[in-house]
Amino acid sequence: MQIKLKVWFELDGEYIFGDGRAELLTLIDQLGSMTKAASTLKMSYRHAWGQIRRLEERLGIKLVETRTGGRGGGETNLTDVAKEFLSRYDKFRSGLDMLALDKCKENFCHIYFS
Amino acid sequence: MQIKLKVWFELDGEYIFGDGRAELLTLIDQLGSMTKAASTLKMSYRHAWGQIRRLEERLGIKLVETRTGGRGGGETNLTDVAKEFLSRYDKFRSGLDMLALDKCKENFCHIYFS
Repeated sequence: MQIKLKVWFELDGEYIFGDGRAELLTLIDQLGSMTKAASTLKMSYRHAWGQIRRLEERLGIKLVETRTGGRGGGETNLTDVAKEFLSRYDKFRSGLDMLALDKCKENFCHIYFS
Repeated sequence: MQIKLKVWFELDGEYIFGDGRAELLTLIDQLGSMTKAASTLKMSYRHAWGQIRRLEERLGIKLVETRTGGRGGGETNLTDVAKEFLSRYDKFRSGLDMLALDKCKENFCHIYFS
C-alpha cells in the first residue's frame, strides 16, 4: 500500500505553485532547455514560458536565465535563487511524504491496510 | 496563501481510497441516501455503488447497509465500522493539513510566500 500526496499553493483561489510547476523547474535544471523541459511534460514551449513568467511575477524572483547562440543553440538555466527555491521545496515535499506515512500509521493505515 | 493537499492510497498502482471516496462516504452518512450522495457528486448511482462495493472488497469490511421501503422509500446508511473508518481517516487527514502547514513554515513558505 502506498500513500500518495499532491501538494499545491493557492492565493485567492488561484494556483501559484506546487508539484506540477516544481517538476517543470526540475526539468529545466536537468536539461538546460525550456524546449526539452516543455516537451518532456507534453506542454507547449509557449505555455511553459507563461507558467515560469507568472511564477516569477508572483514570487518577485527571477527564476531562469537564457543564453542564446553558441554550439547547442542556446540554453535556459535556473538562477541560483531558483535553485535554492526548488531545493527548499523538494526538502519540504519529501519531508511531507514521510510525515504523512508516519501520521497514517498512527491511527489509520495499520488498521485497515495491513 | 493557502496550502492544498490531495491524498490517496494505491495498491499496485491502483487507486484504493482517498479524499474522493471519503467524500462519498461522508455524503452517504449525512444524507442517508446513495442516490442523493451520488447526485451531489454528479456521479451516477451505479458508479457510486461500484466504488463502494470495490472498497468493501478491498478492505474486507461491510461499509453500507440499505433499508428498503418505509415512508421515505428506503435508506442507505454507513455501518458502525464504516463510521469508525471514516472518522479515523478524517482525523488523519485534518492532522495532515496542519502538519503540512507547520512543515512548510519551517523552511519554505515563510521565505517565499510571506
